[in-house]
Amino acid sequence: MTEQLDERPESPPPGDRPRAWIPTVGMVGAGQLARMTGPAATELAIGFRLLADRPDDSAALVWPDVEVGDYRSLDDLRAFAAGCDVVTFDHEHVPAAHLRALEEAGVVLRPGPAALRFAQDKLAMRETLAELGVPCPRYEPVKDLAEVERFAAQVGWPVVLKAISGGYDGKGVWVCGTPAEATEVLGLGLPLLAEEHVAFDRELAALVARSPHRQGAAYPVVQTVQRDGICREVIAPAPGLSEGRVAEAQAMALRIANALKVTGLLAVELFETPDGLLVNELAMRPHNTGHWTMDGSVTSQFEQHLRAVLDLPLGHPGMTVPYAVMANLLGGTDPDVYDKYVHVMALDPGVKVHLYGKAVRPGRKIGHVTVLGDDPEELRDRARRAVSYLRWGHEDGD
Amino acid sequence: MTEQLDERPESPPPGDRPRAWIPTVGMVGAGQLARMTGPAATELAIGFRLLADRPDDSAALVWPDVEVGDYRSLDDLRAFAAGCDVVTFDHEHVPAAHLRALEEAGVVLRPGPAALRFAQDKLAMRETLAELGVPCPRYEPVKDLAEVERFAAQVGWPVVLKAISGGYDGKGVWVCGTPAEATEVLGLGLPLLAEEHVAFDRELAALVARSPHRQGAAYPVVQTVQRDGICREVIAPAPGLSEGRVAEAQAMALRIANALKVTGLLAVELFETPDGLLVNELAMRPHNTGHWTMDGSVTSQFEQHLRAVLDLPLGHPGMTVPYAVMANLLGGTDPDVYDKYVHVMALDPGVKVHLYGKAVRPGRKIGHVTVLGDDPEELRDRARRAVSYLRWGHEDGD
Repeated sequence: MTEQLDERPESPPPGDRPRAWIPTVGMVGAGQLARMTGPAATELAIGFRLLADRPDDSAALVWPDVEVGDYRSLDDLRAFAAGCDVVTFDHEHVPAAHLRALEEAGVVLRPGPAALRFAQDKLAMRETLAELGVPCPRYEPVKDLAEVERFAAQVGWPVVLKAISGGYDGKGVWVCGTPAEATEVLGLGLPLLAEEHVAFDRELAALVARSPHRQGAAYPVVQTVQRDGICREVIAPAPGLSEGRVAEAQAMALRIANALKVTGLLAVELFETPDGLLVNELAMRPHNTGHWTMDGSVTSQFEQHLRAVLDLPLGHPGMTVPYAVMANLLGGTDPDVYDKYVHVMALDPGVKVHLYGKAVRPGRKIGHVTVLGDDPEELRDRARRAVSYLRWGHEDGD
Repeated sequence: MTEQLDERPESPPPGDRPRAWIPTVGMVGAGQLARMTGPAATELAIGFRLLADRPDDSAALVWPDVEVGDYRSLDDLRAFAAGCDVVTFDHEHVPAAHLRALEEAGVVLRPGPAALRFAQDKLAMRETLAELGVPCPRYEPVKDLAEVERFAAQVGWPVVLKAISGGYDGKGVWVCGTPAEATEVLGLGLPLLAEEHVAFDRELAALVARSPHRQGAAYPVVQTVQRDGICREVIAPAPGLSEGRVAEAQAMALRIANALKVTGLLAVELFETPDGLLVNELAMRPHNTGHWTMDGSVTSQFEQHLRAVLDLPLGHPGMTVPYAVMANLLGGTDPDVYDKYVHVMALDPGVKVHLYGKAVRPGRKIGHVTVLGDDPEELRDRARRAVSYLRWGHEDGD
């Protein structure tokens, strides 16, 4: 005979519980990246705390350990960090001076300010990548129209103007076809970088993780499809990319991660051109181009980021399926997304829907879908139909 | 030129947000099943509330919308249900009379009391399955030793005695080799069922979902390996199981789900014998034998349960990989599990660790690991090493 019946054996009284140490990771910001990191923290059963702008931020809706505060306030950051063993980030907007002050006060920041600088300051990023010999588009800091025109005389119009700091998702990036358009951007009074407008064949992204122990792990290189500066689709792995090009992109990303001493994830957005790869942007956090890893990789980027910032051995970044396609869901005009579920799910039971709990506004990223399989074009088609249905209520939207 | 720079565009003021309706699923119980349902609710961005026994229950540690109350109190259940569109369950221990009272009061219970009865009352389950012609071990309700001995005279010793209600994980089940052992169990004063001790080749489980619209979906049939009445390993799909046997098990589970009007998941534990399949136990909720679906299936059982109880179209239950092996992690003697992570993760970067945030007690289920790949024996070996390391701090434990 084996065991005794016990109807409620799960919970001994609190005094009875052996205490075990677990580390607490604090994430500054409570957007969708933090929201998707929560389940990875749950699986690892580590402590996870959020510094949210507002109690109804995307991640704050689905996580219990949330402090509401302002990431631009050093006091709020200090108070938040006091409850964390490691502090990491959902976005790159924490002022650099605050990051340095926290680091001086002994807070463990991963990535640290020396690395984050290159995600916050596009000019410093370009200068450092150039020093490393990493191929980039031609660039020049510009202060006035004369400098823009001088740069355009070398690279040709259109010229890309970028805010040196603060941009993301196409915000802070302007493709200027004429001096008049450049004048308008200059009128915003922001520090600007001019870059050549690259005639690329397609865009790629290389996602890697690096731990304080300097272990590195590279995910399969993906193709990204952007529209109006916003990522719309990611195809993993990038179809038809040669092994040599894959190895080059992964090695480049790992080399950058090492050189910049990144701890956590580094996403490197790339242009594929007839002459080779060029680095477009860097991000030091889980990244939209890695959302497919939740469904198609052994280790999701969110778990990988936690493992890296905790200095745990990294997880296998390989795929579990031949292809994964992710499509971003942008808001349409109807605030109700849930009432589209029945159609989308009936249409395609293999679509994986991820919603961020964000209010619908036209064009806003409010979720994504992932589809897994063998044929990337078929998967793209299925993913597109699903997001069209969720956005517009029919299959044929954009 | 495309878009304007805007450093904090994410959150309009609350009054500005369009309101959209989403349903709220309430789950009674906040153990590991509820804990693993949370991420599925997050992905679908539905409302999800828990009725926890205690604020530090497994799921309550990682979910914000938790009510602490007693599932044995009708008042607590009523108060909890008032905030939910659908109520479902992490366990089967809510008193049947309370379920009926809630249903009469208009609460939407999925599964409902008429179905849950068969998960709560093993005698009713056996009688109904027998009426349906579903093959089961021979059984007989027993009140005293004379009845046990009369039954044993037909089926032979050992005889399995089962508490008619309240058992799980081997609790409430006694394999009695002698009349003396049976007498000891009878002495507990519980309503008992006697069952023949089946000489099975192996144990299997068939997991299906059924929605109020009567849509059904069947997961691949898995092999389960039990020790001391506790599930230790699950191999998906069951290696070498013939297509005919798979179809038979799935059809049997779907037929039971339909006949019992289950809404949500139904797990059917089966004995495979030389003469065919026999039903061992039923559970009407996400089930330990389906944990592998989180990592190895298109739709995890937790998402599937939510889709079913919300009457959404069911997700594809197919596998994304050839094989998935899950091994349960039982508590050892060391309360610290986190400090084993570095070894386990370094040993095998492909192991997926799921911890439940529960205090370690010897033999208690505190987590599981999943490994994905092509060769089930290799995967079993890897899963066993990982749980041994997490439990005992070395690779060779059990």
